[in-house]
Amino acid sequence: MKNKKKAWIFTASCPSVLGTVDLVTRYMAETKNYIEEIHSFDDHSAERFFIRIEFQPQDDNFNAESFSEGFSSRATEFDMQWQLTTAMHRPRVAILVSKYDHCLNDLLYRHRTGQLNIDIAVIISNHPDLEPLAKWHDIPYYHLPITKDTKPQQEAEIIKLVEEYNTELVILARYMQVLSPKLCDHLDGWAINIHHSLLPGFKGARPYHQAWEKGVKMVGATAHYVNNDLDEGPIIAQGIQHVDHAYYPEDLIAKGQDIERMTLFNAVRFHIEKRVFLSGSRTVILGN
Amino acid sequence: MKNKKKAWIFTASCPSVLGTVDLVTRYMAETKNYIEEIHSFDDHSAERFFIRIEFQPQDDNFNAESFSEGFSSRATEFDMQWQLTTAMHRPRVAILVSKYDHCLNDLLYRHRTGQLNIDIAVIISNHPDLEPLAKWHDIPYYHLPITKDTKPQQEAEIIKLVEEYNTELVILARYMQVLSPKLCDHLDGWAINIHHSLLPGFKGARPYHQAWEKGVKMVGATAHYVNNDLDEGPIIAQGIQHVDHAYYPEDLIAKGQDIERMTLFNAVRFHIEKRVFLSGSRTVILGN
Amino acid sequence: MKNKKKAWIFTASCPSVLGTVDLVTRYMAETKNYIEEIHSFDDHSAERFFIRIEFQPQDDNFNAESFSEGFSSRATEFDMQWQLTTAMHRPRVAILVSKYDHCLNDLLYRHRTGQLNIDIAVIISNHPDLEPLAKWHDIPYYHLPITKDTKPQQEAEIIKLVEEYNTELVILARYMQVLSPKLCDHLDGWAINIHHSLLPGFKGARPYHQAWEKGVKMVGATAHYVNNDLDEGPIIAQGIQHVDHAYYPEDLIAKGQDIERMTLFNAVRFHIEKRVFLSGSRTVILGN
Amino acid sequence: MKNKKKAWIFTASCPSVLGTVDLVTRYMAETKNYIEEIHSFDDHSAERFFIRIEFQPQDDNFNAESFSEGFSSRATEFDMQWQLTTAMHRPRVAILVSKYDHCLNDLLYRHRTGQLNIDIAVIISNHPDLEPLAKWHDIPYYHLPITKDTKPQQEAEIIKLVEEYNTELVILARYMQVLSPKLCDHLDGWAINIHHSLLPGFKGARPYHQAWEKGVKMVGATAHYVNNDLDEGPIIAQGIQHVDHAYYPEDLIAKGQDIERMTLFNAVRFHIEKRVFLSGSRTVILGN
Repeated sequence: MKNKKKAWIFTASCPSVLGTVDLVTRYMAETKNYIEEIHSFDDHSAERFFIRIEFQPQDDNFNAESFSEGFSSRATEFDMQWQLTTAMHRPRVAILVSKYDHCLNDLLYRHRTGQLNIDIAVIISNHPDLEPLAKWHDIPYYHLPITKDTKPQQEAEIIKLVEEYNTELVILARYMQVLSPKLCDHLDGWAINIHHSLLPGFKGARPYHQAWEKGVKMVGATAHYVNNDLDEGPIIAQGIQHVDHAYYPEDLIAKGQDIERMTLFNAVRFHIEKRVFLSGSRTVILGN
Repeated sequence: MKNKKKAWIFTASCPSVLGTVDLVTRYMAETKNYIEEIHSFDDHSAERFFIRIEFQPQDDNFNAESFSEGFSSRATEFDMQWQLTTAMHRPRVAILVSKYDHCLNDLLYRHRTGQLNIDIAVIISNHPDLEPLAKWHDIPYYHLPITKDTKPQQEAEIIKLVEEYNTELVILARYMQVLSPKLCDHLDGWAINIHHSLLPGFKGARPYHQAWEKGVKMVGATAHYVNNDLDEGPIIAQGIQHVDHAYYPEDLIAKGQDIERMTLFNAVRFHIEKRVFLSGSRTVILGN
Repeated sequence: MKNKKKAWIFTASCPSVLGTVDLVTRYMAETKNYIEEIHSFDDHSAERFFIRIEFQPQDDNFNAESFSEGFSSRATEFDMQWQLTTAMHRPRVAILVSKYDHCLNDLLYRHRTGQLNIDIAVIISNHPDLEPLAKWHDIPYYHLPITKDTKPQQEAEIIKLVEEYNTELVILARYMQVLSPKLCDHLDGWAINIHHSLLPGFKGARPYHQAWEKGVKMVGATAHYVNNDLDEGPIIAQGIQHVDHAYYPEDLIAKGQDIERMTLFNAVRFHIEKRVFLSGSRTVILGN
Repeated sequence: MKNKKKAWIFTASCPSVLGTVDLVTRYMAETKNYIEEIHSFDDHSAERFFIRIEFQPQDDNFNAESFSEGFSSRATEFDMQWQLTTAMHRPRVAILVSKYDHCLNDLLYRHRTGQLNIDIAVIISNHPDLEPLAKWHDIPYYHLPITKDTKPQQEAEIIKLVEEYNTELVILARYMQVLSPKLCDHLDGWAINIHHSLLPGFKGARPYHQAWEKGVKMVGATAHYVNNDLDEGPIIAQGIQHVDHAYYPEDLIAKGQDIERMTLFNAVRFHIEKRVFLSGSRTVILGN
């Protein structure tokens, strides 16, 4: 069986030219790293190449630094951006919530049982309600109330906390506030939001009410990276459910919770497993 | 086993007041009609009641006219709109197509093998391409080319044909023309269109291209009644499929065809089985 | 909007004869009870009729006893078995678990947030591991270890606890013990088990390992009533997931957990909403 | 956009040892072949490596023979079994049917519209019913009736036809006969069958009837390679649908048809796109 403890993940992207795969795989062979799994994609519209490799070093004293050093010059030639991560890496995560706890509860459960290889470093909320849940999981909880006037200060505090706790991923687990452009910029590319509609349909507030008005037969959820264009960040994962005429908006809200948390979980998992690449405003997701 | 040959379908709607169900079911008992299946729904937002009953007359000489006569006065009291249809009724249908034949082919197959209890009376197209397919199924095919200038005349011919062939349902099976308001009005409530997106997302032209631009992870299709608001008619059925970054627009188009024809088939089936009711701009679909 | 506080649920079944629906709906009208929703089914193979009605009494002093008294004699004529339950009824539930907590955690979450209208009275386990989880939710937890020799005594204690706590539903939320015929008999019809395969496929132990051996591309879960035929009780709900060659048995186990808890939740919800009827060894599920 | 006309597909498998990927990708680079897409899998239980590559030769005069010649000796060192196929290759296919035509009709439609890159060389049936359908598509149709006594001769004729028409894939599109061990042996590995259940559940005859007896809430279909163990060949694809108590066996049969043809289509597509590898009795399917 797989030995995840020893596995490493190598990801890279660069312009599409001959020899990109060989550049990487030859180096893997030369450094005696056994490739467990390899996936690549060429985006013809962007003329860009993406690759993800899971490998097992055969040398017990595998040294990431010397691996990186040796590869750097080769990568430069191909203008390749790349990353090396041990599969055991547990990213430190900050979770932002409001009052709905279905996404938070799901993340905490998967974190607690080892399904999600993250370290939830801090939970931040504009409401005090979910503190007991955080407490039971022994995770610091900060209640940062927000008003129109205090928004800049509150957001500054969020940024400060996220930094103090050394987090490398921020999850907006139904945080019911529109982020300022400044905070969006700060979080660009390393924060995941869950929106309760199949974006770009039903952007903005109260998407389930919008969906009900239209009489749709399916509603869904979208997990996406935060950027400075509200509800327009690159889509990572989407989920869906069938509904019918008997679902009033409150029923859609209730039923939607299962989709939201599954979709958010999937997106977080893809992200921490280094499966997600950006190609313009779209994502490439390898080997999920 | 069920004896569909003898079954009748009774459908009705009226304002929500005490006694609506009793009004109907008591009459069924009095007239010795055995209820096979009963479904009702109360739309609280519209304060309107909907009911659908499948029944087997116990009297071999069941007479629809005397049933109707006897029920009329009772219905009037409740301001009830109602319909009685034999389950054996095969509605005469007109199909409008352009060049894509996946929906047409699917409808013809289900019609030919008895899966869809309709009588395809006529096929009308603005292109000649699909005539051989119609021919093989022994169905009259009319090629009515259309230009900007001849649109009024062409649509007038469509209306004429639809009438001449005594059709009671028109199916737009990927008919790639924007209907004029006049034709929309004419078809309001008895024509079903298939749109290749999860409406109201990606309305208008080239929805798969729009979806690709946005990098969505799911695309779908919507079958809806035609009304005079483009792509905004009441939704009857929706279907969905997962896609990923490797789908270019032409791949979405190819893969979408299976969803489109399944969704259109479902909507047509609901319609001819008298399961679809309108409640404002939304549909109520009973017992599917 | 619906007022669930005042709603009642009426369910019944009897042999298929003329007048069954009328018997019920006429009484509803006479006693001034407004029918919100009505669903019926006739099982032609068993020649048996099933009906479920949600209604709102128009009389603020609706009295269940006099309703029942008035209906009893009518029901007897049709050999009808029937039940009347207020929609507000929260059944007292006992949950049996072992070490896996994904189903338990899900039930506790939905119970805590009001998604599942039950009162979890007691949690019983053959292991001590999940006590902290029970504690945090303020629910009594009994650790009843079991060995081959102590099985009769342990099961006797389970029966005693289930009775002491006045529970009317027992949920086996991944309780990893084969119940004795005696306990099965005791629980027949009012206990729901979750099995981690699409029964009747992969009965017995280690179904995910069995599935992996066969190289299946889908695995699922089945929630069923306990009866005295192991893994053969009437099926209430089933769930499914796509898998591929990259799933080793331990991956199937991990991924299966989401399906198991969703499927168990659905079955419990159907049961407490009085939607499930038995027709021989099959279930009829109305209006879900 | 992709230029499929020029693309080639390279597939290989061998024991899991260091350097397998490099062996292939280095050769691709040396021979100036641009890798469009690469997928690999290591089966830890079998200690076997699988790889699939789509590539575009940069040399307009790409020569498959010299490519193969150059690679052979390298492959031998790793005990690698490999194949090179142009993406434009249209395998010649024989289809076996009985009376049900939903799978045949679907394959013919996809063949006719270019969705399935195959050349349907011959259709063989033990009944005359589907000849008109074959005729309309200009495909030779052979009616080979079968009785218990003539089975050996009939099967011999099948083998003869399959050979005469130079087919490299045989599709059993609901061919309702149990093949003899001799014919199974002959077709082992290059014939795909569609079975109307989620194998290994409901093996053998009348699976929908079996499913109805058990009261399952889902039924499905399985496409698998034919081998000499009835309904036990390696599974390629599976499909599923939700059903409920209202589905009698004949309803399951009708509804199942859509799943059967979709599942068969998927399996055939995987096969002709060279995505399917055998690892013991299981399949590995790369990059679908």
